Amino acid sequence: MRTTKSFAETREVGNGVVGLVPTMGFLHEGHLSLIEAARAETDTVVMSLFVNPLQFDRDDDFARYPRDLERDVALATAAGADVVFVPDLEEMYPDEQLTRVNVIGVSDELEGPRRPGHFEGVATVVAKLFAGIQPQRSYFGRKDAQQLAVIRRMARDLSMPVDVIGVPIVRESDGLALSSRNIFLSDDEREAALQLSRGLLRAADLVEAGERDAKAITNAVYFEIGDDLSVEYVSLADQDRASPVTALDRPAFLALAAWSGETRLIDNVHFDRGEGGYVGDRGIRLADRSVLYGTGEG
Amino acid sequence: MRTTKSFAETREVGNGVVGLVPTMGFLHEGHLSLIEAARAETDTVVMSLFVNPLQFDRDDDFARYPRDLERDVALATAAGADVVFVPDLEEMYPDEQLTRVNVIGVSDELEGPRRPGHFEGVATVVAKLFAGIQPQRSYFGRKDAQQLAVIRRMARDLSMPVDVIGVPIVRESDGLALSSRNIFLSDDEREAALQLSRGLLRAADLVEAGERDAKAITNAVYFEIGDDLSVEYVSLADQDRASPVTALDRPAFLALAAWSGETRLIDNVHFDRGEGGYVGDRGIRLADRSVLYGTGEG
Repeated sequence: MRTTKSFAETREVGNGVVGLVPTMGFLHEGHLSLIEAARAETDTVVMSLFVNPLQFDRDDDFARYPRDLERDVALATAAGADVVFVPDLEEMYPDEQLTRVNVIGVSDELEGPRRPGHFEGVATVVAKLFAGIQPQRSYFGRKDAQQLAVIRRMARDLSMPVDVIGVPIVRESDGLALSSRNIFLSDDEREAALQLSRGLLRAADLVEAGERDAKAITNAVYFEIGDDLSVEYVSLADQDRASPVTALDRPAFLALAAWSGETRLIDNVHFDRGEGGYVGDRGIRLADRSVLYGTGEG
Repeated sequence: MRTTKSFAETREVGNGVVGLVPTMGFLHEGHLSLIEAARAETDTVVMSLFVNPLQFDRDDDFARYPRDLERDVALATAAGADVVFVPDLEEMYPDEQLTRVNVIGVSDELEGPRRPGHFEGVATVVAKLFAGIQPQRSYFGRKDAQQLAVIRRMARDLSMPVDVIGVPIVRESDGLALSSRNIFLSDDEREAALQLSRGLLRAADLVEAGERDAKAITNAVYFEIGDDLSVEYVSLADQDRASPVTALDRPAFLALAAWSGETRLIDNVHFDRGEGGYVGDRGIRLADRSVLYGTGEG
């Protein structure tokens, strides 16, 4: 395993088909599953690690975002990364970043209005990673469903020769979707947060039983959620456009955002076309406690 | 010489160091000088030819923009292009182009407010060409001074490993800067248009004699321009930021836009740091009439 600090060096060490896994670090099994997917399909697996100030809509969220480079490098290496690209601010933003990449429409609903500038920041930094590293494939979690749609569209619209691949959500054994921010949850907040995945999975049952009406599907989620969570939205949205639909008549995802205490959580279930109709992607369940709560034992 | 229609094919035929010359076709000696510059510095010279609807702020301007593919391919070949990339609309914009690239600041003055959406269209299509072809070097005329600044900043801000090179303006023997749009000028309009280069060159003399005040420098241009032209602006601007300066205290360009009849013309002189102070780039003079007025004799 090799650590790089510059785009030029990262491009040079890539051999054959390069698979890129962009992250903001503080890795959990969700990130590791991206590395494993890349490992299986590419010759050189590059994981980038950069907490991107451009995509944070709140300064306090950026400031308190967890960071632990040594731990991340150990976990990434164990999962099969060949290269860990750790640019500093000077490499990533040597000057004022005047150039901005926007994906109109796909960025405008769901998370868009609630996190002003977020998707511009994401699209811009990922455009830089794709342009500067020139990978043939890149891996993103389905957990950030709208981000996946934004990036896929961005790469396509900018004629970038990179396949953008969405990888199933990894959940803890009790259903909670992994997130680096989960470490901020108290026991009670974590318990309350379980309502989210429970609601989504109940809605997936309903869809697989034939329900297609968006209102009925989102209501199934709300039914599971009590007063101890503050819901921002529950929405069934087109997978490509990330825009709400009234019925499940195309590949879609059922997404939500909610606060448990001071921590904002998102989760979703993707509905893909299967043989017998739409199938919910329930994600992967961990058997054991996440590495998030240990200290580097990968 | 080979003609390609897809990004993938264009990437594949590029060997060694690839030099890209993006054009909208209807070539003149200005374009040919870009090809020659690329020929001297790279292994594979790719000229792209695409009249980009996204960068036209007026539909009539797009509709009447001159086109002659056969002529262009012959001229490009004679000048040394290895590949002429001629994407159709379907290859360039297979879907609605939702992704837009903006270079804040650099796009905001001079041409910016007068051609709404123009630089967004330019930055977006050039980002696509850079991402889809992955050249190591790319060549642009200094005639579009602000465009050059926008693209240079875009490439840098997006971490693209491409050197953006500005090439001197090519002028007819009487000083008129070459432009595909010159073919629309009547004899009288063309005669009037000569005032523009005359004014710019007079200002260059003044600068080289020691003048540094922007007002004095721009006034020298206005002094040459009569009522038969309608001037939009004359401005001394920072080469990197394309923003007006009050004194020549850094590399800058003296730019103008004016209408001669129904045709909008732009021209400029770049001031670069030389040994004895700032030197005006007066461009290259053609000895003979431009190929614009012939039919393909390169």
